[in-house]
Amino acid sequence: MANVRLGIIGLGNMGSGHIDNYLHGRLKNITITAICDIDPQKLKIAGEKLGDGVKQYATSEALIRSGEVDAILIATPHYFHPTIAIDGFRNGLHVMSEKPAGVYTKAVREMNEVAKASGKVFGVMFNQRTNPAYQKLKHMIDSGILGPMTRATWIITDWYRTQSYYNSGGWRATWAGEGGGVLLNQCPHQIDLMQWICGVPKRVFAKAYFGKYHDIEVEDDVTAFYEYENGATGLFVTTTGEYPGTNRFEVSGDLGKVVIEGGKFLYYKNNRSIKENTMNNNGGFSGPGCTVEEIKFDNGGEQHVGILNNFADCILNGTPLLAPGEEGIRGLSVSNAMHLSAWTNSWVEMPLDEDKYYALLKEKIAASRYVKPEVASGEVADLSGTYGGAK
Amino acid sequence: MANVRLGIIGLGNMGSGHIDNYLHGRLKNITITAICDIDPQKLKIAGEKLGDGVKQYATSEALIRSGEVDAILIATPHYFHPTIAIDGFRNGLHVMSEKPAGVYTKAVREMNEVAKASGKVFGVMFNQRTNPAYQKLKHMIDSGILGPMTRATWIITDWYRTQSYYNSGGWRATWAGEGGGVLLNQCPHQIDLMQWICGVPKRVFAKAYFGKYHDIEVEDDVTAFYEYENGATGLFVTTTGEYPGTNRFEVSGDLGKVVIEGGKFLYYKNNRSIKENTMNNNGGFSGPGCTVEEIKFDNGGEQHVGILNNFADCILNGTPLLAPGEEGIRGLSVSNAMHLSAWTNSWVEMPLDEDKYYALLKEKIAASRYVKPEVASGEVADLSGTYGGAK
Repeated sequence: MANVRLGIIGLGNMGSGHIDNYLHGRLKNITITAICDIDPQKLKIAGEKLGDGVKQYATSEALIRSGEVDAILIATPHYFHPTIAIDGFRNGLHVMSEKPAGVYTKAVREMNEVAKASGKVFGVMFNQRTNPAYQKLKHMIDSGILGPMTRATWIITDWYRTQSYYNSGGWRATWAGEGGGVLLNQCPHQIDLMQWICGVPKRVFAKAYFGKYHDIEVEDDVTAFYEYENGATGLFVTTTGEYPGTNRFEVSGDLGKVVIEGGKFLYYKNNRSIKENTMNNNGGFSGPGCTVEEIKFDNGGEQHVGILNNFADCILNGTPLLAPGEEGIRGLSVSNAMHLSAWTNSWVEMPLDEDKYYALLKEKIAASRYVKPEVASGEVADLSGTYGGAK
Repeated sequence: MANVRLGIIGLGNMGSGHIDNYLHGRLKNITITAICDIDPQKLKIAGEKLGDGVKQYATSEALIRSGEVDAILIATPHYFHPTIAIDGFRNGLHVMSEKPAGVYTKAVREMNEVAKASGKVFGVMFNQRTNPAYQKLKHMIDSGILGPMTRATWIITDWYRTQSYYNSGGWRATWAGEGGGVLLNQCPHQIDLMQWICGVPKRVFAKAYFGKYHDIEVEDDVTAFYEYENGATGLFVTTTGEYPGTNRFEVSGDLGKVVIEGGKFLYYKNNRSIKENTMNNNGGFSGPGCTVEEIKFDNGGEQHVGILNNFADCILNGTPLLAPGEEGIRGLSVSNAMHLSAWTNSWVEMPLDEDKYYALLKEKIAASRYVKPEVASGEVADLSGTYGGAK
């Protein structure tokens, strides 16, 4: 295979962004051969940009069965990611899904099983994994440089959005259309990075506020507390209602601390183990001592382009994926756990009770202000084929 | 009255520190005329420093009834603060208590009532209230400069202590001797400042770890979540087990944000109200815009010296107190709420159920590893008169 023939499904913000990267020559070994959107206007605009050689389809089913593509990139609203991915795998295609992998883990689990059985390449657009700062931090944890982790705190409150943003698509910020708010739309990157770097917590307690800063039915303010298997604690704090907000990720371990904030990566390297010092140092206030270093990076990583080129490289040469699709369920399970905890005002043990989560989600969907004409019963499955292009 | 004649009760770390400030001429309008400790060695050392004119007593009762003092400064272990203060007020003395005001609000409430009835001056050593950075932030909240508060987050994890610190006094970090760990010993300042600046929360949920990093029976790691009356949220995170730790206080409001960390005070001033922008700006991602300014201060405030001089000034001239003793109960009630929430794994509504807290505290005391000879039943009251000098 010379180039991977790629079909893009969903031509909203994200789908259009990928096309722009392609037209600027940033994608290697990839040729966009087909596009799809249920909105004829979006299809027309993208088609004109890409030229006559690129086939246009009104449905994902048609694109997937066209014989024109080796792989698809799914950039539809979240609910459709698993449905379309499964259709793609069953028709012999490689699949790249936008984040989140889906809205609820039950559907994503099925997608993962079909992906595995298909033997095809499955990636998820966790573009932040290409950021060298997060890669460095992951390495420092994985290799033991920071020692056993004791605390991880991510304050990510710079996702400010106006009411007009939420008004821009009827599906946005609704239980039926999006399945959640800031946790499902803005935060999948940070939730994934946190589990990628620190692991999936053992249990979660979260407080979420629904429509606190906006006229929406889903959450726009969340504070979650994690407990990890080794006893370490975690905090995840987010909102779309603050400004200018904060993006600060701090991880402490027995051998030091890292703070990533405002484009700076500060590494506090302890002179010895805290634990050892605590037990053996006779000075009551005497810490192990430490040095501070700012670690600088040339850039913020290749982001979306890097993930797509890595995807093509995996298809063509077997290069390992930086963000395997099967891992999408991890962050999503943490996100679902936050919702479940907030809905039930109780701790949620991991792995979470997926049936309980799904049952409660369906209640929310049934009561949702957003009801598409095609949706009769509020069943998520009934939404298949109704995806809009906006992302 | 020319100078306030001050008696110091308890000659541990804090009592000795105050004497050093006095000997360096930093206290105005104050003459130390008497000292007290149950440890003859501590009494002798301090007595030699201060000279023959200063009377020495083995018990607080004797000092209080000596006729040698107008005011007392209580620097004993926490449990004795209310008991000794009440004895002081009943004998016509002004009282300055070290922090915390006490261990449990029931005792502190009684102390406050006696103080009020006495008409004497009552102060508490919240020396951090003299820090101009915290004063500035309080002013920005009180005056509306930051707009209605939306979130307050204090990560105060730089209270590192070794095991030897906890081993240095039998009463330390025990339910019977100290009534708690990091919340009662290290954090009263921050808990007070946070309530002074942001108010007392409406409800509290906390997770505490007991003996996580040290061989102690009380908490050395706490994460607490606050909800305020206006819907704002708060986080308070502390431990004595991390190094180098973090001290970062961030407060967000509708008109901006302040971050105090590492000696820096950063003020993010929004160009307009977030709320107004959220509802009226048609750009989905467009915030109100802001400018950032670092506000610098010449120094960290007069601290303990400032609080003591203000106390004397109040006695002599009626100058208002910066840290009135009656306010000690506010931070303590938040601290007690954190313990109660952690013990019961549930939300604690404020004002907290003091009887429930006290009943559970007594259970902990009864099971405490620290049992003084004088303590027969584990009753807190039985500890009266057994205070040690170490602080």
